[in-house]
Amino acid sequence: MRLHSFFRSSASYRVRIALQLKGLSAEYVPVNLRKGQGEQYEAAYRALNPQSLVPTLQDGAHTVTQSLAILEYLEETHPQPALLPKHPAERARVRALALAIACEIHPLNNTRVLRYLKDQLGADPAAQDAWYRHWIGLGFAGIEELLAAGGGTGRFCQGDTPTLADCCLVPQVYNARGRACDLSPFPTIGRIEQACLALPAFQRAAPEQQPDAV
Amino acid sequence: MRLHSFFRSSASYRVRIALQLKGLSAEYVPVNLRKGQGEQYEAAYRALNPQSLVPTLQDGAHTVTQSLAILEYLEETHPQPALLPKHPAERARVRALALAIACEIHPLNNTRVLRYLKDQLGADPAAQDAWYRHWIGLGFAGIEELLAAGGGTGRFCQGDTPTLADCCLVPQVYNARGRACDLSPFPTIGRIEQACLALPAFQRAAPEQQPDAV
Repeated sequence: MRLHSFFRSSASYRVRIALQLKGLSAEYVPVNLRKGQGEQYEAAYRALNPQSLVPTLQDGAHTVTQSLAILEYLEETHPQPALLPKHPAERARVRALALAIACEIHPLNNTRVLRYLKDQLGADPAAQDAWYRHWIGLGFAGIEELLAAGGGTGRFCQGDTPTLADCCLVPQVYNARGRACDLSPFPTIGRIEQACLALPAFQRAAPEQQPDAV
Repeated sequence: MRLHSFFRSSASYRVRIALQLKGLSAEYVPVNLRKGQGEQYEAAYRALNPQSLVPTLQDGAHTVTQSLAILEYLEETHPQPALLPKHPAERARVRALALAIACEIHPLNNTRVLRYLKDQLGADPAAQDAWYRHWIGLGFAGIEELLAAGGGTGRFCQGDTPTLADCCLVPQVYNARGRACDLSPFPTIGRIEQACLALPAFQRAAPEQQPDAV
C-alpha cells in the first residue's frame, strides 16, 4: 500500500493512526500542501485524487480517497484488530463521533477555508482565530457532552480499545492545540487524548514522526 | 422507528431517501430549525442530540445521530435492498462520494455558517452567495470528475442501483438549485439526479412531501 500524506494534515493523521493500530505498513508518499500553490493541485496528484485533497490510499489497483472511506476500507480488508465494535448501535455511535469531527469541525477549519476568509472576506488574523475557535468550541462541546454522558465511553471514545472515533479525535485535538485553543472545558476529550497518546501506534502516527516533517 | 427531521434539511433528506429505498417506515417528528432560535436548541431535543443537529433516528432504545452514521446503521440493520456494493473498493468509492458531499460541501453551506459570515464577518447577501457557490463549484467539480471518469459510474453514482452516494447527491443538488447555482458544468451529476428523481422513493423523500413542509 501507498499512503499519499502531508505530515500536518489531520485527515492524513487519522489514516496513519489506523494503519499503525492495525500493524499495516504503507509506503509514505509526501504531498506538500505548502509548496508553491500546493502539490495537491499538480496534475500527477489530481489524476489520483480529482478533489486535490489528502490523503489518498493506493492498495494494488485500488485508489481510495476521503479519510473516513479509507478507514472503513482498512476495517473491511484488515478486520483485526477491529476499530469498530460489533453491535450496529455501537458502531453507529463510533461513526457519529468520527463524523462530528470530520463533518462539523474539520471542514470549517481547513487551510483553504481560512484562506478564503482572508482573501475574499478580508478577515484579519484575529477574525480568523475567532472563526477557528468558534467551530472548535461548538464542535467539541457537543462531543464532550456525548462522551461524558457515558453511553459506551470507556478508556477510549467507545469502550477500552481504540476505534475510528479516536483516530479522528486525536488529530483534531492536536490541530486545536496548534491554534492555542482553550481545551479545559473538555476534560473527557483531554482524558481520552492522553490515553491514546500513551499508545505507540498513536505516537508513531504523529506529525513530527513523519518523513516530511519540518 | 422515529425520525427527527426538518423538511428542508439536506442531512434529513438523505436519511428519508434511504428509509424509502429500504421500504422502512418511521414516525416523522418535525424539528423546526426556523422557529424562534430553532427547536434544535431546545432542551428536549438537545437531550436526544447534544450537537443540536438534525436528523436523529430513534430505533427502540437506540438513538443514532449524524446522517451518514444513520445510513450505515440502516444498512447494517436492514441490509436489503443494499445501498452499498459488495466489494470493499466499490464500497469505498461510494463512501468517498458521499463524504465528498457531507464533508467538503454541506458543512460549509449550512445555515449556521452563513449566519456567522453575516453576523460576525459582515458578509452581505452577495458575499454569502459567492461563498455558497464557491464551495458548491469546487465540490461538484471534483465529484463530476470522479463520476465522469467512469470507475463504476452507471445509471447511478455506482452501478445501476442507488447507493448511499445517491442519497447524499440528490439533496445537495436540490440545495444548490435553491440558491440558483449554475449546474451546467456538471452534466453527469445532473443526469444521475434525474435518474434518481424518476424513482418513487426519491420523490416521496422530497422536502415538499414532508408533513412540516410550508
